[in-house]
Amino acid sequence: MSLIVIGTLAYDTVETSFEKRENVLGGSATHCAVAASRFVKPRLVTVVGNDFKEEHVEALRGCGINLDGLEVADGKTFRWGGRYEPDWNTRHTTFTELNVLGDFDPKLPDSYRDSNFVFLANAVPAIQMKALSQVDKPEFVMADTMNLWIEVARDDLLQLLTRIDAIILNDEEARMLTGENNLIRAASQVLDMGPRYVVLKKGEHGAFIMGKDVHFSLPSYPVVEVLDPTGAGDSFAGGFMGHLAKTGNAKPETLRKAMLYGTVTASFCVQGFGIEQLQTRALADIESRVQELLSIVTL
Amino acid sequence: MSLIVIGTLAYDTVETSFEKRENVLGGSATHCAVAASRFVKPRLVTVVGNDFKEEHVEALRGCGINLDGLEVADGKTFRWGGRYEPDWNTRHTTFTELNVLGDFDPKLPDSYRDSNFVFLANAVPAIQMKALSQVDKPEFVMADTMNLWIEVARDDLLQLLTRIDAIILNDEEARMLTGENNLIRAASQVLDMGPRYVVLKKGEHGAFIMGKDVHFSLPSYPVVEVLDPTGAGDSFAGGFMGHLAKTGNAKPETLRKAMLYGTVTASFCVQGFGIEQLQTRALADIESRVQELLSIVTL
Repeated sequence: MSLIVIGTLAYDTVETSFEKRENVLGGSATHCAVAASRFVKPRLVTVVGNDFKEEHVEALRGCGINLDGLEVADGKTFRWGGRYEPDWNTRHTTFTELNVLGDFDPKLPDSYRDSNFVFLANAVPAIQMKALSQVDKPEFVMADTMNLWIEVARDDLLQLLTRIDAIILNDEEARMLTGENNLIRAASQVLDMGPRYVVLKKGEHGAFIMGKDVHFSLPSYPVVEVLDPTGAGDSFAGGFMGHLAKTGNAKPETLRKAMLYGTVTASFCVQGFGIEQLQTRALADIESRVQELLSIVTL
Repeated sequence: MSLIVIGTLAYDTVETSFEKRENVLGGSATHCAVAASRFVKPRLVTVVGNDFKEEHVEALRGCGINLDGLEVADGKTFRWGGRYEPDWNTRHTTFTELNVLGDFDPKLPDSYRDSNFVFLANAVPAIQMKALSQVDKPEFVMADTMNLWIEVARDDLLQLLTRIDAIILNDEEARMLTGENNLIRAASQVLDMGPRYVVLKKGEHGAFIMGKDVHFSLPSYPVVEVLDPTGAGDSFAGGFMGHLAKTGNAKPETLRKAMLYGTVTASFCVQGFGIEQLQTRALADIESRVQELLSIVTL
């Protein structure tokens, strides 16, 4: 079944304790779409500037991503810079240049309107809703968000929460959205806000999904060497949604398995900068690591 | 099979964001023995002062704990005070009064020398070794430690590590012992120091066990209301060792299951002050929660 991914594309400047890289192909939709492209041929909706390099268009196309929804606007591509503390858990945003993203007004190509599975990557909630309204009959919609929108666009976000099937949050976002420190209680409160499911990511500590008919928790895949955590959450979402779209349903058992695929795609993501690891991996690599993860979590 | 627990008994003063309790029956060996007593009749080796209350002797005996190794020394029982930050993850020690613990020199009753399973709760490593040397032919020995001994008694601790089967550490201790931030790498390095297994506790984020023939990871049981985390790690150890002793072996499959029992006993511990929750729970309660946890971690 078809999966559409709507969100940002960025050139990232990433500093870790070991290395600094500039103009790394990144952005929420990029990471998600590349991860999902290991499962299906995702449809991408995003905007880039006319400085966007042809080699990057080719990299995305080479992943099997449908680029009909890639808008090239006059101006520069969105740029973001981040620096990680040695413990990887603390990230400082060093700069943000919205550029063409400032006027992002997603228009879905007609050929995308019949998409079954929808991922609304992190963006202004009003923009996420506008994009969603252009999908005719979505079967399963998951959205991401961030601390900024929880603070400055809370009403829109609450409205969005009533229109989607699942929200994916990290621990900090869940706590900020609910004012609840205990993550199980926070997840319950998020469910009360509308979505049927909440996927709660805890970084190196794994993730869980909670809803009326499912509660499943996983540790993260044990990565020995992290190179760059940027995009891990979006890669998780890509693996998760990719598995749903490939399977063609969002039944509880499919959602559980999707958590495994999300966890494993995220583990590949952090082992390289940008999409460099995931774009070289086949579904077979992912399946192999899923089996390994299963061996670690199964009695 | 028989389990022996060697460690401290304390009167704790615990402050949380919600409540303060004084002279709560606690201590590493107490928490461990009470948790283990849900599985077998553990043998306890510890020291108390002559202020130790008869009602607390009765409480421990009521749990089915063998108290032949309970030494009553002239002086006051060890006292410890701690205060938790609202997020539960940060604990401040408010005071420590060693009292009779200062001269603790564990002497095992002859009837304890044939113990099969041994838990050396947190204590001076030299004392732990001295106690261990009094067990004739232990089948499986697990030890706990703390940041203080890693700093001030490192050589003794390294010696201890070559004499035991398993070490149980929290994330902070594992990082301090190895100087390695990545917990998987830290665990590998601990294994290089001698023990066959390392059990690594991550508080609310669960725990994993790693060794040559086993690698198993679990999230924590989703506790909605924490009252007092004191003793959670020792209760984990008690459930873990209790299951091994009850099963009578330390095969990889038994170690995996022991992780479940450790996780669940710890979850009961944090729902009350001191031993008040665990002492009222039967093995059936634990089994029921183990099944619940399994449903959350099984595909």
